[in-house]
Amino acid sequence: MADVVIEPYNIRVSGEAGERLYDILKRAGVPFRTECGGRGLCGKCRLIIRSGNVTPPTEREIRLLGEDLVESGYRLACQTRIQGAVRLLVPLETRVGSLSVAYSGLARSAPLSPIVRKRLVDVQQPSLEKPLADADSLLASLNGERLDFGVEALRELPRALRRGSWRVTLSIWRGSRVIRVEPGDTTPENLGIAVDVGTTKVVVHLVDMNTGRTLGGVFSENPQVVYGDDIISRLRAALDNPKALEDMRRLVTGTVNNLVRTLLVDSGFASSEINAGVVVGNTVMHHLFLGVDVSGLSFSPFVPSFARPLELPGASLGLESVRMVYFPPVVAGYVGSDALADVIAVGLHLEDSPSLLVDIGTNTEIVLNTGKELLACSAPSGPAFEGGHIKYGMKAMTGAIASVSIEGDVVQYSVIGGVKPIGLAGSALIDAVASLLDSGILNERGFFNRDSSRRVRKSGEGEWYEYVLVYGEESGTGEDITVSEKDISELRLAKAAIASGVRTLLEHAGLDAGSLEKIYVAGSFGYSIRPENAARIGLLPDVDPSLVKQVGNTAIEGAKLMLLSEDMIAEALRVAREMKYVELSASPYFRRHFAKSLRLG
Amino acid sequence: MADVVIEPYNIRVSGEAGERLYDILKRAGVPFRTECGGRGLCGKCRLIIRSGNVTPPTEREIRLLGEDLVESGYRLACQTRIQGAVRLLVPLETRVGSLSVAYSGLARSAPLSPIVRKRLVDVQQPSLEKPLADADSLLASLNGERLDFGVEALRELPRALRRGSWRVTLSIWRGSRVIRVEPGDTTPENLGIAVDVGTTKVVVHLVDMNTGRTLGGVFSENPQVVYGDDIISRLRAALDNPKALEDMRRLVTGTVNNLVRTLLVDSGFASSEINAGVVVGNTVMHHLFLGVDVSGLSFSPFVPSFARPLELPGASLGLESVRMVYFPPVVAGYVGSDALADVIAVGLHLEDSPSLLVDIGTNTEIVLNTGKELLACSAPSGPAFEGGHIKYGMKAMTGAIASVSIEGDVVQYSVIGGVKPIGLAGSALIDAVASLLDSGILNERGFFNRDSSRRVRKSGEGEWYEYVLVYGEESGTGEDITVSEKDISELRLAKAAIASGVRTLLEHAGLDAGSLEKIYVAGSFGYSIRPENAARIGLLPDVDPSLVKQVGNTAIEGAKLMLLSEDMIAEALRVAREMKYVELSASPYFRRHFAKSLRLG
Repeated sequence: MADVVIEPYNIRVSGEAGERLYDILKRAGVPFRTECGGRGLCGKCRLIIRSGNVTPPTEREIRLLGEDLVESGYRLACQTRIQGAVRLLVPLETRVGSLSVAYSGLARSAPLSPIVRKRLVDVQQPSLEKPLADADSLLASLNGERLDFGVEALRELPRALRRGSWRVTLSIWRGSRVIRVEPGDTTPENLGIAVDVGTTKVVVHLVDMNTGRTLGGVFSENPQVVYGDDIISRLRAALDNPKALEDMRRLVTGTVNNLVRTLLVDSGFASSEINAGVVVGNTVMHHLFLGVDVSGLSFSPFVPSFARPLELPGASLGLESVRMVYFPPVVAGYVGSDALADVIAVGLHLEDSPSLLVDIGTNTEIVLNTGKELLACSAPSGPAFEGGHIKYGMKAMTGAIASVSIEGDVVQYSVIGGVKPIGLAGSALIDAVASLLDSGILNERGFFNRDSSRRVRKSGEGEWYEYVLVYGEESGTGEDITVSEKDISELRLAKAAIASGVRTLLEHAGLDAGSLEKIYVAGSFGYSIRPENAARIGLLPDVDPSLVKQVGNTAIEGAKLMLLSEDMIAEALRVAREMKYVELSASPYFRRHFAKSLRLG
Repeated sequence: MADVVIEPYNIRVSGEAGERLYDILKRAGVPFRTECGGRGLCGKCRLIIRSGNVTPPTEREIRLLGEDLVESGYRLACQTRIQGAVRLLVPLETRVGSLSVAYSGLARSAPLSPIVRKRLVDVQQPSLEKPLADADSLLASLNGERLDFGVEALRELPRALRRGSWRVTLSIWRGSRVIRVEPGDTTPENLGIAVDVGTTKVVVHLVDMNTGRTLGGVFSENPQVVYGDDIISRLRAALDNPKALEDMRRLVTGTVNNLVRTLLVDSGFASSEINAGVVVGNTVMHHLFLGVDVSGLSFSPFVPSFARPLELPGASLGLESVRMVYFPPVVAGYVGSDALADVIAVGLHLEDSPSLLVDIGTNTEIVLNTGKELLACSAPSGPAFEGGHIKYGMKAMTGAIASVSIEGDVVQYSVIGGVKPIGLAGSALIDAVASLLDSGILNERGFFNRDSSRRVRKSGEGEWYEYVLVYGEESGTGEDITVSEKDISELRLAKAAIASGVRTLLEHAGLDAGSLEKIYVAGSFGYSIRPENAARIGLLPDVDPSLVKQVGNTAIEGAKLMLLSEDMIAEALRVAREMKYVELSASPYFRRHFAKSLRLG
């Protein structure tokens, strides 16, 4: 193992000889630009090697960077392996300082009443005649405001008072608890973070709590992926071995620490601390982040350890530079605080006619405002939309077909990054199936009409047929890119899970899809689909496409609203308490709907 | 640096090659028997070397242990130096399992209402129809009792419920907060610790909170001694370098961890956790234990950061196996929670006629119950009573003269351990001065009447005289053991600080010493003195000796009372609020009394 120091963040991680810098940066949770996912295609993951031993430049690097850059120390993270201790710099152009739209979302605005406010206080000095403890001197200077003190504040209070010549700035958590004391007037700086812990991605936004402005946002892979891509593998790991639970906790908090550090450095707050964080996530991520045992989440009836909100000092969680962290309530074992944040961000609970929110992922959270109450469920949609179990499926990155339209034998498509295609993103799979249905090439049970197109052929792998989207001569790999009946079967299972969840909630409310006046589609996958095609294959209810709002990452936006507004925290508590959870596996309607929903369209 | 593993506690520390096991054990905070302070005299610090390289046995060891024992692996810690990694066993006879009277004290009894109580609960299982979160299922099973949950309890709740087949034992902190959940019925075991953090010594008692029984008590040197013997050096270290503060915090909590581990192992609770701790100490020790900045304590007017009580999870302090810790309030910069515990233990506040408590140390806390109110002050008595600045002064250990009486040229004395004397303990110094006064050999200004005894002679070191207590032929070192005018001058300063503190409090109350109906003398030094001699030299008010109660370590006893009784916690809060602190340096009476008190008797 060798030390790798990542400048300008001064993050130190261990790497093994032979390991790619790309993987080391990922593991460290340092966000950096890449469009091809580390395949040496996009040339975006540029680093500068400051010192240390790495493998020599590859031909591909010289082609993508040019000899001049390579000679001056530039390398591509995906092409460079360490051979010992290395110190490197992530240059400005490689940093992910700006927000990718997929990792922020639409949100309503809220009155600014942040979770931490600052207050400047002039404190009366103690004397031999009146030798008050510092905390009592401070309280006596507050004109009767009643505050208590966190131990961190008590630790630094004496020094701050004396360094600040008895003028200090308090950071006050939730209107009642002093969590920080700084010498002098530091009221202009009041930083907070919103954190969305997804199974796949961790997103952090840095926020100025005085103004409500977002200062930056970054994301990184959830490093718990070493215990498995999906929630089930991670639950199993935590059950089998209590150390895995603690390890997963450390991994994700370590990543948040590193993301925060990069945000602070990139926003010019290198030496600052964060006053507050709001962390949302699905219930498993929520438990793992807190180090809470997950045995209740692993077996039916899938209940969390607790559903209520929680407040903790960041230090107690290993979040080194965050004073206090608020965890909004979760709703159920598979409806987490991320779904609650979605609702808060779009204001679903405020609609007075029926409206729906769908946050599509490997688990899809569905919330229905019936016009009178909120119903929520979780549908096990699986990884098909992210390319899982789809032969040429892939995530939406360079080389992925993003959209497709098919008329008979004519296929038109667009590729992310403008390169030759190597696979297709979930959105393109939906497009393809919708077009194939419209063209009469595919029937609603998911089988090809074998003579409907010369692109339809028997699969080389088994007793099913496939449609050739891109022939080898056009593709980036030389291979044909196809959509098979087997792929479509996976898609059908995924979309049936979601559609039958929606139908079950509607039936519980005695509504039909036609009564829906708004459909919010949340999440980064949801942001990339074409709603008419999603409706065409039956993924979304068949409503006027103008009623569908693609709102992006509303989980992070909801978390941010709670950071910035006590009113939003209070609303979220009300919503969580009032939301009715519908357990699909216990619903009399679900099985019937699921079977029907397997039909395409 | 090499690893030293200390069995049976499985404590692991680093030692340097050449370092004595004696010093390594001290540093680790592992209590062990020694009477001579590591000078190879008493033969008590026996260890068994299990494996590893150490220096060969010395002649002294072979003499003290015998060849048989040495051959079977026994060594003396003070004679053995490590030469690499070592695994050793502290054998039963070397363990300090029983209470030395000096480290416990007298205390009144209190109704048992411990700071943590246990409760067995049968919990209704959740179902698909009613998928309640575990915490909500638990609350629903409590017949309306309102409890909240610490995060540690939430972490283990799901597993405990399922392992215990929905029967669990709650540990409830202060009647309202669940801090621990264990599967099945564990109500019989409910452990707590009382901790007295002194500048010199750390004392820990293990308590069964169900019965109030003390299961064991151990003590160790306060390892902060590496930053200086006295409070002033430690304050200076913490001020100069913030890392020193953190380091001192870690040192002392590490020692408490090790003491707790030895107590648990020695009491047969090897795998247990501690539900609660109550920690008392002088205000500087209190701040250092909590990692609180000490700048307010370092400069006049010497104020603490805060005076109120504090409750914290042990984990947040690095107390690995202690769930929650209660820190009683401190009274002032130099009257800590140890003095408050003294008052609680003896019930000073309950007396309805004038009574006094004096806890003698390098700072001496004095509390006067005037019959109507409590006055407290702190007197800077210095280290003379522990042998500091006294030529032949030493702590009360093997070889120290413990008591003396002198008539003319005839000196009678007793020596701790029954060996030849090598110095004199503080108690003997008081005895000697009292006898010398009575014999007319010494006058009240601290000077010898030069021709009053043939043992009086001019000191070889300067312009002062000395009295030969023990001639070289009788002493353990071959040197004469003397008491000089210079030594007596140090003693006068120390006793004057205490006496003038007492007089100042009495004058504030408009009382004179004759009105005192009880004098409690607390602390281990106070336990060893002869009250009539302490009164003779003017250290204690001149009252009927039967009014003087030597009560030992009442600080640890007061801490224990708070662990065992919410009533005692409430009483202590009241006492702390009502006690009036008198700052001696601001008192108009103090200077006058100090000058007068320099006279002996």
